[in-house]
Amino acid sequence: MSEETSRRRFLTGAVAGGLAAAGAGSAGAQDKGKAATAIKSNPKNQPPNVPSWSKVLGDGVATHPYGKPSKFERHVVRRDVEWLTASRESSVNFTPLHELDGIITPNGLCFERHHGGAAEINPLDHRLLVHGLVDKPLMFTMDDLKRFPRVNRIYFLECAANSGMEWRGAQLNGCQFTHGMVHNVMYTGVLLRDVLREAGLKPNARWLQVEGADSAGMNRSLPIEKALADCILAFKMNGEALRTEQGYPLRLVVPGWEGNIWVKWLRRIEVGDKPWLAREETSKYTDLMADGRSRRYTFIMDAKSVVTNPAPEAPLRYKGRNVLSGLAWSGRGRITRVDVTLDGGRNWREARIDGLVLDKSLTRFYVDFDWQGEELLIQSRAHDETGYVQPTKDELRKVRGVNSIYHNNGIQTWLVRSNGETENVEIG
Amino acid sequence: MSEETSRRRFLTGAVAGGLAAAGAGSAGAQDKGKAATAIKSNPKNQPPNVPSWSKVLGDGVATHPYGKPSKFERHVVRRDVEWLTASRESSVNFTPLHELDGIITPNGLCFERHHGGAAEINPLDHRLLVHGLVDKPLMFTMDDLKRFPRVNRIYFLECAANSGMEWRGAQLNGCQFTHGMVHNVMYTGVLLRDVLREAGLKPNARWLQVEGADSAGMNRSLPIEKALADCILAFKMNGEALRTEQGYPLRLVVPGWEGNIWVKWLRRIEVGDKPWLAREETSKYTDLMADGRSRRYTFIMDAKSVVTNPAPEAPLRYKGRNVLSGLAWSGRGRITRVDVTLDGGRNWREARIDGLVLDKSLTRFYVDFDWQGEELLIQSRAHDETGYVQPTKDELRKVRGVNSIYHNNGIQTWLVRSNGETENVEIG
Repeated sequence: MSEETSRRRFLTGAVAGGLAAAGAGSAGAQDKGKAATAIKSNPKNQPPNVPSWSKVLGDGVATHPYGKPSKFERHVVRRDVEWLTASRESSVNFTPLHELDGIITPNGLCFERHHGGAAEINPLDHRLLVHGLVDKPLMFTMDDLKRFPRVNRIYFLECAANSGMEWRGAQLNGCQFTHGMVHNVMYTGVLLRDVLREAGLKPNARWLQVEGADSAGMNRSLPIEKALADCILAFKMNGEALRTEQGYPLRLVVPGWEGNIWVKWLRRIEVGDKPWLAREETSKYTDLMADGRSRRYTFIMDAKSVVTNPAPEAPLRYKGRNVLSGLAWSGRGRITRVDVTLDGGRNWREARIDGLVLDKSLTRFYVDFDWQGEELLIQSRAHDETGYVQPTKDELRKVRGVNSIYHNNGIQTWLVRSNGETENVEIG
Repeated sequence: MSEETSRRRFLTGAVAGGLAAAGAGSAGAQDKGKAATAIKSNPKNQPPNVPSWSKVLGDGVATHPYGKPSKFERHVVRRDVEWLTASRESSVNFTPLHELDGIITPNGLCFERHHGGAAEINPLDHRLLVHGLVDKPLMFTMDDLKRFPRVNRIYFLECAANSGMEWRGAQLNGCQFTHGMVHNVMYTGVLLRDVLREAGLKPNARWLQVEGADSAGMNRSLPIEKALADCILAFKMNGEALRTEQGYPLRLVVPGWEGNIWVKWLRRIEVGDKPWLAREETSKYTDLMADGRSRRYTFIMDAKSVVTNPAPEAPLRYKGRNVLSGLAWSGRGRITRVDVTLDGGRNWREARIDGLVLDKSLTRFYVDFDWQGEELLIQSRAHDETGYVQPTKDELRKVRGVNSIYHNNGIQTWLVRSNGETENVEIG
């Protein structure tokens, strides 16, 4: 509806009161065993009160050429943590996992991570240079790239630092902040190997340097094996052009590997015979072990999962029938199984996986359960097709110490209190 | 970047000149056989000119809590046709198929079709009534519904009138207008059969009346077999809440069937023993045959396809290597094959289907081809798993006459001229 209609309607009170309540948490769970209300009699075969929206014309089709969410969903946004980094241009925000379902992350809610802010590039002026150990150095326009054969693949992208604050114990209260540096979209692009083949790799080609056109000139070293296996030069996400903050007009997709190497605003690929030891793979994105040595080039994101409902931002609100929902993913392939415990690990049950189960993609799981107000300690544990099982955080710490920031794929615990309120805790 | 930064940057000319060119069509195809430019020498291993966006900080992470497309994609929008209906509140707009790739339609670009505008509903106040031939009439809140077991499925939704103008020959010049009343998203919701089971169907239950809470009170009759088979009460699309214009907070998903019966803003399900003969299944959404009789309850959308690039809005721009891209779908199951001809049907080749091939979902196909400026007559022909093959428009007219508006799934033809410009034509 038009601004004017909207204002009028608001003033008459037709939509008043809703938003505050929709955004607010629960003030304790209600006792409601049945998921419906029995109707005693309804002689007119109509809902008892005809609401205002059934009586006035709504927005016509020319109102929003590019649509946006309902105003009642205003609270569903990416959120950042102001104290986390020195500036917002070198920071991160988080996907609101507790507000989502299924496996597709809508483009407007995909978390951001920048090193010099989101570069705003005119696609007509963008170029990709391929040079170094190649037969013919080549410069591509966006149109050039779009003339290679295209592929479409759904992949998760997870920042290596996702859950990084949790290495030293439960710190952030909310799955948006503990696990929200992940998203999952369908990419359209061309295979990196086809473009490299066009330039012609020299026999001693072993590594690529991939570099962004942002003000940080973000660069990483990528082994040639991975480049030739499944990397994509992507120009679309979920059907439409990449979003500015996701690298418009061109991003490197490196399936299953840490997000930092998925270089955005990709402008340059240099072919060489050894890694470049770039800032983002020496000073950052290495894993400092207890003995003072660092693991380097730890690219792959191991199997992980998280329960997104209930969660600290999404408490249990009703006794009786309830739906537990969560996400699992693995950088090594498909998820084969997810276990869930409601009692801190004494009993595990196999979650119901629903929908698409794809290679290196988020996978949705559910547990349909009955709750009578008992305290719960909820955990989930992912299995992938290599046989790998998601470890506990303590198991990870035994091997890697607590100096790390990156690659924390440990099992997460939510404590649900008897009033339904939910907290991030660590157990045993 | 901020409005202020943006304005400053614009004034210094850094982004000038791009947008107009990006939105404009081609003024004839360029001769460019190779999809890249050879680089003669590049001693500094850098792109020759460092562009402005590599020199200034971009937007930080708090700038757009809910993201939107790049300003260089401003032309990618839903479009309507003003003269098509008496008012915009009872009209349709169209998905820009020629600007999309893959199979997911982003929520902001899913076509709209309204009968009384898009109802704007506070989800806390929304109710679904289930009554009629049931053991216990029930009233559900949105929270009640979300406590049933959830499912996630990708389905296409096509308006029965998609391509309707083409019954009488090629009329609309652009695939957005000839075929853009279709979209494809991942829905999350609960199975209609679970909710009906809760109310308890009486033995003589045969049909449902499903009714929306919009000002049109849009209602249709749905056979009980389909309701129990695979219909979903959906509350999410592509991960987030339904958009207002797609029925927020609750829509009926009727896989493979005409869009009109996917009732939005669903408020009421009445169980009965015969169809209701509602306005939208008698006066509209019937197929008037040549002999004056009407086909009724023609729910299923048969196999169909369209080439989205090239298309009238997306002419061929380069000689040499080119990518033809298109979509195929069937309301009866999976797409098994798509044939493409470039010469008006003299020669057919099998298109390369890429990505997910799902039940009752859009399916993406490509033909990677070489073009030397010859005139092309492009058509595509979909096959589904029932063995059905998409017919020509003439074959359809022989059976159904030319009185119809709905269910035109005939083969579409694009004429590509030697300068690359593309037109909607009919042949043979």
